[in-house]
Amino acid sequence: MKDRMIFKKDLKEKNELVNIVLDRFLPRKDEYPKQIHKAMRHTLFAGGKRIRPYLMIRTHNLFSEKNELITEIAAALELMHTYTLVHDDLPEIDNDDIRRGKPSCHVVYGPDLALLAGDALLVNSVELMNMIEMDDTLKIKIIKEFVSTCGDRGLIAGQMADIMNEGKKGSPEILEFIHLNKTVKLFQLCTKIPCIVTNPAKENWERMERYGYLFGMVFQIVDDILDIEGDEKSLGKTTGKDEKSQKLTYPAIYGLEKSKATAQQMIEEADEILSHYGDKAHHLRLLNKFILSREL
Amino acid sequence: MKDRMIFKKDLKEKNELVNIVLDRFLPRKDEYPKQIHKAMRHTLFAGGKRIRPYLMIRTHNLFSEKNELITEIAAALELMHTYTLVHDDLPEIDNDDIRRGKPSCHVVYGPDLALLAGDALLVNSVELMNMIEMDDTLKIKIIKEFVSTCGDRGLIAGQMADIMNEGKKGSPEILEFIHLNKTVKLFQLCTKIPCIVTNPAKENWERMERYGYLFGMVFQIVDDILDIEGDEKSLGKTTGKDEKSQKLTYPAIYGLEKSKATAQQMIEEADEILSHYGDKAHHLRLLNKFILSREL
Repeated sequence: MKDRMIFKKDLKEKNELVNIVLDRFLPRKDEYPKQIHKAMRHTLFAGGKRIRPYLMIRTHNLFSEKNELITEIAAALELMHTYTLVHDDLPEIDNDDIRRGKPSCHVVYGPDLALLAGDALLVNSVELMNMIEMDDTLKIKIIKEFVSTCGDRGLIAGQMADIMNEGKKGSPEILEFIHLNKTVKLFQLCTKIPCIVTNPAKENWERMERYGYLFGMVFQIVDDILDIEGDEKSLGKTTGKDEKSQKLTYPAIYGLEKSKATAQQMIEEADEILSHYGDKAHHLRLLNKFILSREL
Repeated sequence: MKDRMIFKKDLKEKNELVNIVLDRFLPRKDEYPKQIHKAMRHTLFAGGKRIRPYLMIRTHNLFSEKNELITEIAAALELMHTYTLVHDDLPEIDNDDIRRGKPSCHVVYGPDLALLAGDALLVNSVELMNMIEMDDTLKIKIIKEFVSTCGDRGLIAGQMADIMNEGKKGSPEILEFIHLNKTVKLFQLCTKIPCIVTNPAKENWERMERYGYLFGMVFQIVDDILDIEGDEKSLGKTTGKDEKSQKLTYPAIYGLEKSKATAQQMIEEADEILSHYGDKAHHLRLLNKFILSREL
């Protein structure tokens, strides 16, 4: 219980710093044409847990204690992530009415405005990344990682494969492709960018790549499990969607028990990686613990 | 007639160079998941006239004869422009079934894939920009201009204002806001980036800003006129849409005759600007001429 309180407090603190960056960067709600700016802020400030920015900042703290730059990059990443949520929820993709416990962007503003708001969030994520003060060569390296993770050889490939495999039998390989691209790569970006920024010894890069992989996979497997077993109210999103739309998920391929065992095993390996970093990894260990139960 | 042949040949030549960059950069059609790559290429290679890349390259030639770098930047800009077409055509925005003389992306691939293909084109435009070989500081400057032109204080603001003002009485000020953001700023980007790349004397920057403005306005006014008077087949897109959806257009506010006179007057001012550049502006003068009649 004490751990949980420490973790929640820390998550909230880091969240608030990310939110300050986002709020300062985005146009005010009353700037003309105000509907676009209201729609953009709707999902962005709907109370997301900001797991990705948190993972990035706390991974960064394994190698550095300076948080200003990484918080700004984390904010740009959250913009990128939020665009994917807004577009995913649209009627032509998942047609999802609830997001982060509130009505989805298109439910409130209509699908036309939600489409444009998603586009604008994507453009803004690059815009924010591009205006953060840092060495130019470093910035270009980070933008490269950033956009390739989100493109048609990353996130969009995953979404596309996800759509194309609805109602199909699928295979472990296709499932791996979908999870890796749709979910895991963005988490790996969170553990890679701190390496790009701080340039630690080689073994750390490899560890962080694996840590990002494990964390991302667990996140997705738990997501799939919660879609079956979870409570809509505490999750803040619709459940039972995967079965309804016959999605290719971890439980669909391996069954619930095997899925839970795999998630447990992966988080143990993730903890092992963190053991190299002693006290500095304290908050990441808590994150591992709570991501498994999703008691955030 | 001779002028027209010279112009068409030149446009085609420059087009082909842009197409080579695009074709090399984008994933093959058969890369998994192939539907996304096919959908991306569908509108991109549907035979667009590539006016924007051409304007950029030929403006560049006022100050430099080296075309390699500007052709790559122009290709990235065409990716950005094409994403806006794909999303604009979607059922929730303009619901337009014909684009560049062919069925729109969503007609062929469905609105879900078209949405993702549009997203991917946008991501790819930044990705291409970011990997072009040039000085890092210059690149960051260009990306800044690039994304701010396309964001919620640029193109998306224009699209949003356009949607919000359908069926409304409107005003010359709102019409100017829509045209400036939705259309003109992207043309101004085409005449500004050559200045950023070649850094000519101050008066050229001002001239090119004005030239981009005039050219973009004429382009949009002629577009509005053709939506009333044009022929679907030769235009390669649906006409009569503006009246049907009660769009705020130049003819709607000022009438057809005044619109034609304004376009003529603006192109004369654009020619005047080009007179500073003698023979180097030969192709741009032809472009001015043919953009007015749209005989491209």
